[in-house]
Amino acid sequence: MTEYLREILSERQVSTTEDARAEHSGDWATLSEWVTPDPVEPDVVVYPETTPEVAAVLEAATERGVPVTPYAAGTSLEGNPVPVHGGISMDLTRMDSVLDIRPEDFQIDVEPGVMGPAVQEAAGDHGLFFPPLPSSGDISTIGGMIANAASGMETVKYGEVADWVLELEVVLADGSVITTGSKAPKTSAGYNLRDLFVGSEGTLGVVTRATLELAGRPAQQRGGRAIFSTLADATAAVKDVVTAGVDVAKIELMDTTAAQMSNAYTGASLPDAPMVFLEFHADHNVDDEITFCRDVIETHDPETFETASDDRMADLWEARTELAYALSEYDPDRQPLHAGDVTVPISEYGSVIEYAKQRGDEADLPVACFGHAGDGNIHYAVLVDDDDDGEVERGKRVYADVVDRAIAVGGTATGEHGVGRGKRRYLVDEHGEATVEAMRAIKRALDPTDTLNPGKMFPETADDGRLREPEN
Amino acid sequence: MTEYLREILSERQVSTTEDARAEHSGDWATLSEWVTPDPVEPDVVVYPETTPEVAAVLEAATERGVPVTPYAAGTSLEGNPVPVHGGISMDLTRMDSVLDIRPEDFQIDVEPGVMGPAVQEAAGDHGLFFPPLPSSGDISTIGGMIANAASGMETVKYGEVADWVLELEVVLADGSVITTGSKAPKTSAGYNLRDLFVGSEGTLGVVTRATLELAGRPAQQRGGRAIFSTLADATAAVKDVVTAGVDVAKIELMDTTAAQMSNAYTGASLPDAPMVFLEFHADHNVDDEITFCRDVIETHDPETFETASDDRMADLWEARTELAYALSEYDPDRQPLHAGDVTVPISEYGSVIEYAKQRGDEADLPVACFGHAGDGNIHYAVLVDDDDDGEVERGKRVYADVVDRAIAVGGTATGEHGVGRGKRRYLVDEHGEATVEAMRAIKRALDPTDTLNPGKMFPETADDGRLREPEN
Repeated sequence: MTEYLREILSERQVSTTEDARAEHSGDWATLSEWVTPDPVEPDVVVYPETTPEVAAVLEAATERGVPVTPYAAGTSLEGNPVPVHGGISMDLTRMDSVLDIRPEDFQIDVEPGVMGPAVQEAAGDHGLFFPPLPSSGDISTIGGMIANAASGMETVKYGEVADWVLELEVVLADGSVITTGSKAPKTSAGYNLRDLFVGSEGTLGVVTRATLELAGRPAQQRGGRAIFSTLADATAAVKDVVTAGVDVAKIELMDTTAAQMSNAYTGASLPDAPMVFLEFHADHNVDDEITFCRDVIETHDPETFETASDDRMADLWEARTELAYALSEYDPDRQPLHAGDVTVPISEYGSVIEYAKQRGDEADLPVACFGHAGDGNIHYAVLVDDDDDGEVERGKRVYADVVDRAIAVGGTATGEHGVGRGKRRYLVDEHGEATVEAMRAIKRALDPTDTLNPGKMFPETADDGRLREPEN
Repeated sequence: MTEYLREILSERQVSTTEDARAEHSGDWATLSEWVTPDPVEPDVVVYPETTPEVAAVLEAATERGVPVTPYAAGTSLEGNPVPVHGGISMDLTRMDSVLDIRPEDFQIDVEPGVMGPAVQEAAGDHGLFFPPLPSSGDISTIGGMIANAASGMETVKYGEVADWVLELEVVLADGSVITTGSKAPKTSAGYNLRDLFVGSEGTLGVVTRATLELAGRPAQQRGGRAIFSTLADATAAVKDVVTAGVDVAKIELMDTTAAQMSNAYTGASLPDAPMVFLEFHADHNVDDEITFCRDVIETHDPETFETASDDRMADLWEARTELAYALSEYDPDRQPLHAGDVTVPISEYGSVIEYAKQRGDEADLPVACFGHAGDGNIHYAVLVDDDDDGEVERGKRVYADVVDRAIAVGGTATGEHGVGRGKRRYLVDEHGEATVEAMRAIKRALDPTDTLNPGKMFPETADDGRLREPEN
């Protein structure tokens, strides 16, 4: 296969070096060695630069029964692009051009390897921006965001990445190139394949071009931070802000544990107490919206509620923006075992966080809860000593129990990180066997040889979902 | 088959009367005898009342090779529920219960036969509403709106029906029952089947339950109407209002021809001139938004720009709300041949309307253009004398030319009416053969016997997409 790849691509687009293979055997999830305990390296890494090259590789791989796992920035959190069956890792980061921008239509056309900042820069030249970037948006690719149905802090106001994708060019496993969606703001012309590919984690096709919608950058932005005495007050305040219809652009929660870790890291003189971080976007009258928000929050006895503009916004938000680092640095002997990610109906938001905290207490492990509260999104990190098998096992149990509880209250096992390797066991629990079988039917229809990213998303089977061995 | 249906359903749920069969052989499109020139009656009409009944009928029909065409209010506009191959018409209007409402979560669970007003009433009790109803929402079912990916006047602010569907229970052709989506505000757990069923026009499954999202009813509503001297001013004003980011809840355009017809019908003393109708929703400061809008509109030399609140809103909007009747009543010898519906990027909005007008002039036929301008949605009606074959042919040509132009500028052949019978010929033009083949692959995967609504959506083949004859 590698020989043939060198025929259809140029020399610099095919690599079998140990460095390249190792680099493409993991993502952020594999750092903890839980999701993919035995990282499998791809046999070869290809770097296509055009749609026809993607098509040629896929066609050849399908003919030869060689797995192809799309890869981009590697910032996914469930092992989504880890090539568990070897074969080809298809690295799309060289397809990184902004192809066109049409500011009158609020549209931009990009290749899949374009990263968040390049989109914002191109859009910013016209007073526009791409709102739904995930927290990793600065170092993630648009293709990866689409593949994993990403969303982020501003989803509470603007929606998910899926809501901002108008049209996709996708190469299927057999090498055929299709175009789904429309450059019109809406369409009812045939099946909505576009939103089927969004979130399909590279198992149905490879996105080679995306037309994204943009928004006008709001004239006014303000930040806010409320600190509460109790978690119950903080979660109730979040729920009321959302249900009252306050127009927030971000609303993030951190529990006492997360606050304590952040304060230790930043050295800020803030109390170790539940915090809610807010951002407001408006073209005018932003202060009226803040007054509305303050009225709602003050019914929940905040210790403080501060707002700020311009440079001061970043100061108010520091505890939240530094949290990821704070989690890693808090205890030299303990690291977050995994990036927990569930989403629940907002009415259950407080109860599921309380449950996570309780399970942490019972397991005698620190559990930090945070997340995009306005969407009912809960991120949580259990800190464990990797060398202590008992802690690791207790930690895994906490992660699993929180997912089970989220599903039990009508929520989802994965709000924004996708299924990948890590969440496969929950797919049937959440959707039921008949629904998962319908998903499998679609996988078989579009990729009958299971060429694309095999071993992901679907629950394990005896042969791990793939019978045939690649012929190299 | 009818005998078996009487075994699995009760007597009052199975009808073969001439009235029932005739009633289920058409929709609003067949009124013009263009989309389905030879209406085919179903052999039998069934009225399931529960999900297991839907499943039992579908399982039996699939086993026996009998087509099943879901039917509800019959307000579709492309022949979508017309049973072109006979068989079973499955009337879902008796599944019309609001099952649950969870105001804290902004969620309502409904059966597919529930109509718009029942949703608004249940939601209104909690200060909530369901924003994306189509213009026919008062007499259409939620199931029909989901099947046809409906949208409407308020889509410019709130999005389409698809954006407000959280979870669906769907019965597949083999009788299996699946649940897609989540009651969480967002999910990345597996393939997005939910949005695949939305807009699939009953060809992939039958929706038996939907969880919809609701919104808080805005505290302030205002109406507006601007009248312009020229169509170019009116379309430019629409584009600028949208691109400037004015927060409009509705923005509708009517060209001079439409205005003239409405004025004749309502007897209003308005000029026969292009009009733009607006609505504003806000919780506070609605007047600031109107001022912002006025500033934008006044750069396009409006003859008048009036706004109003409360009862006066309906007066301002009368010409638009009466338009459908006005089109029918304008000329006793001429009726709209069809409900034209394309959507284009907003930058092409003016040019495509101008093109439609020009084609009308060349065909010597009145063409009224209107529609949900903020989405780039153009509705158009060509008035023809049904008895004049020359007029009918010229009229059809105008409809077709406008669709071709919409596709050529990156738009869609059908913005919100779906494909049904009427738009099948455009599916390949718009998406390309490889994309349509991927759609077919999904149809075959989920409904291998082509039981559900055969003869719709996909372009005609020699056997019209269905080989086997039903065994009665």
